[in-house]
Amino acid sequence: MTRFAQTLPDPIIAAKAVPPLPPTGPRSLAVGVIGPGRVGSCLLQQLEAARPRLWHEAGLDLQLPAVVGRQRMWLDCDDPELNHRQDAAQTWRPADLEEFASYLQSRRADAALLVDCSASELVVARYPSWLKAGMHIVTPNKLAVSGPLPRWLEIRRACDSGARLRYEATVGAGLPVIQTLRSLLDTGDQLRSVQGMFSGTLAWLCNRHDGTRPFSVLLREARDLGYTEPDPRDDLSGIDVARKLVILAREAGHPLSLEDVRIESLVPAELAALSCEAFLERLEALDAPMDLALTRARAGGGVLRHVASFDPQEGARVSLQVLPASHPFAHTRLTDNIVQFTTARYGENPLVVQGPGAGPEVTAAGVFGDLLQIAHALPAHA
Amino acid sequence: MTRFAQTLPDPIIAAKAVPPLPPTGPRSLAVGVIGPGRVGSCLLQQLEAARPRLWHEAGLDLQLPAVVGRQRMWLDCDDPELNHRQDAAQTWRPADLEEFASYLQSRRADAALLVDCSASELVVARYPSWLKAGMHIVTPNKLAVSGPLPRWLEIRRACDSGARLRYEATVGAGLPVIQTLRSLLDTGDQLRSVQGMFSGTLAWLCNRHDGTRPFSVLLREARDLGYTEPDPRDDLSGIDVARKLVILAREAGHPLSLEDVRIESLVPAELAALSCEAFLERLEALDAPMDLALTRARAGGGVLRHVASFDPQEGARVSLQVLPASHPFAHTRLTDNIVQFTTARYGENPLVVQGPGAGPEVTAAGVFGDLLQIAHALPAHA
Repeated sequence: MTRFAQTLPDPIIAAKAVPPLPPTGPRSLAVGVIGPGRVGSCLLQQLEAARPRLWHEAGLDLQLPAVVGRQRMWLDCDDPELNHRQDAAQTWRPADLEEFASYLQSRRADAALLVDCSASELVVARYPSWLKAGMHIVTPNKLAVSGPLPRWLEIRRACDSGARLRYEATVGAGLPVIQTLRSLLDTGDQLRSVQGMFSGTLAWLCNRHDGTRPFSVLLREARDLGYTEPDPRDDLSGIDVARKLVILAREAGHPLSLEDVRIESLVPAELAALSCEAFLERLEALDAPMDLALTRARAGGGVLRHVASFDPQEGARVSLQVLPASHPFAHTRLTDNIVQFTTARYGENPLVVQGPGAGPEVTAAGVFGDLLQIAHALPAHA
Repeated sequence: MTRFAQTLPDPIIAAKAVPPLPPTGPRSLAVGVIGPGRVGSCLLQQLEAARPRLWHEAGLDLQLPAVVGRQRMWLDCDDPELNHRQDAAQTWRPADLEEFASYLQSRRADAALLVDCSASELVVARYPSWLKAGMHIVTPNKLAVSGPLPRWLEIRRACDSGARLRYEATVGAGLPVIQTLRSLLDTGDQLRSVQGMFSGTLAWLCNRHDGTRPFSVLLREARDLGYTEPDPRDDLSGIDVARKLVILAREAGHPLSLEDVRIESLVPAELAALSCEAFLERLEALDAPMDLALTRARAGGGVLRHVASFDPQEGARVSLQVLPASHPFAHTRLTDNIVQFTTARYGENPLVVQGPGAGPEVTAAGVFGDLLQIAHALPAHA
């Protein structure tokens, strides 16, 4: 322990001495969580833990009165004595999204906010009516923002009500990706290109694929470690990465759709239609093409990376690319995501954000951050 | 041109099709700029250029009625017909900060915001009274946030009025550093350590110092390129970097002061007291110690970098450090800043932000981003 550490006050006292949030008068926000899965449950825990602090430091009364899953839902009017304790026995009723949203909006709160942690088209279909009714939405769900353009535009138009939709966690989980791009654009910068590695799984595979072991062995190991989807083709196809690219391009004002992205799938054509079991038995078919790609990359002194890139002239592309060894993407840590924005102001050297881009905790934190942005913009009471 | 590029609509139409800012009803903000130097002038240009867009897309009436320099100031009541045109002939009156602030607050606007682009203690001394009076402040000036702790706490307490103080551009210019840390903490994460290279000048020198040329030659080159301060000791001393570290530690709730930072200056003791001219004639005295440091770093297979680090146990330190060649700081681009946050949630792999961390344009953009955060949180009219 250094002298410094000994004289450092208790962190809680310190935090009070330097108040972290601007007090802006009391406000209340009723939050309903749709989809209490891994991310949704983690978010509920984070919100529960933060409630006293948000009240004391920011005057924010964060209410958590409603949770809805696929089959059933819980409204705290059913359990008035439970007072938000998610760990206690709860009374559930059949899930009904309309009833759920109505209940949330009927609460005595300054605003109602729906968190969509589902991966459900049925939920997305309701965004326009919820937003028109003035309810805010925060989601890590890529379906709305990367889905059909007419629906996305309808959703954006529904925000004319003043309701806000935020979706930071759709790209890079809790990393500040969308808000960074948003801030660049809002302050008058122009996006020239965006380049990223948006799949921790594919980043890990490319990092580990050094020629000592066949790609199929690495893929099996990644699947055993839980890094891949149950069917690894969901990662290898590149579609999830392409959705994230669509989200960023649209954020910059370009009406890109998933069909516009040139995706080079890592799944050989003859394996694409197999059952998952049959595919897993034939992973060795991936080895020859991946070895060839690696050999070619090395012949040019480069490294092989799975990269998503967009620029307004060249369009959007998701593919294996050979990068020079000096490229920042050549030095990422294992499963890290990385994104770099090249803009008018960040022209010579781009702006880079890097870090873990998946996992329930950091994804929930990304959702939580969006929620706070909306909460902080709520008008305070007199 | 690809098929995609040919079918891409005009960017302006595209931007309208995907509205970038949530419309939240009309609001007005009167902005006064203190210190129309390089950053202040650049900011005024950025704000002027953005005004029509902010009004059309976000209903924000951004007023720029007042600018004050060291000697004189301009209030648009003196030139009602000029209507904010900074390029036209203007009527100036003697500078008076109180009159300036009073005029700004007397404007018919929903809120008044002062931008402090000075480097003046006289301006910082007025922060508490301005904030208590409800005026918001945005600044790239490190003096307040890294200055004496009692004054900083007084400034924070003055925000009890509901006024907000933002200072993103004090660290890394336009890079999202403080807001990223803020979001981690506000969502319940805990900072374990922060590590960064906060001087583009020292990053450039370390990157270029490969043993082929003496350090003094590189330093002269950097000065000729305009990378260093006129007196390079202002960079080499590490004090400016230490100020940024203090800002980040305080943001995380630790009452750190500049005196708590163990700063290892690169300026040999015998050169510290010389005049600038005399110092510039004796730069060769830096070569032997820097060569020795480089030799030692390489003997261990590492690289030499100028690093600022803080953690609650070890305290704060600014020094040359030997990093493993695999460390992300070993691969930054020339003058880039980089910061990594290790937290409870980003424990194994930290969250990293990297990019150019100096220059009037990106610094002004960081100020502009803060201004928009405050503007977006203003209550809209009915």
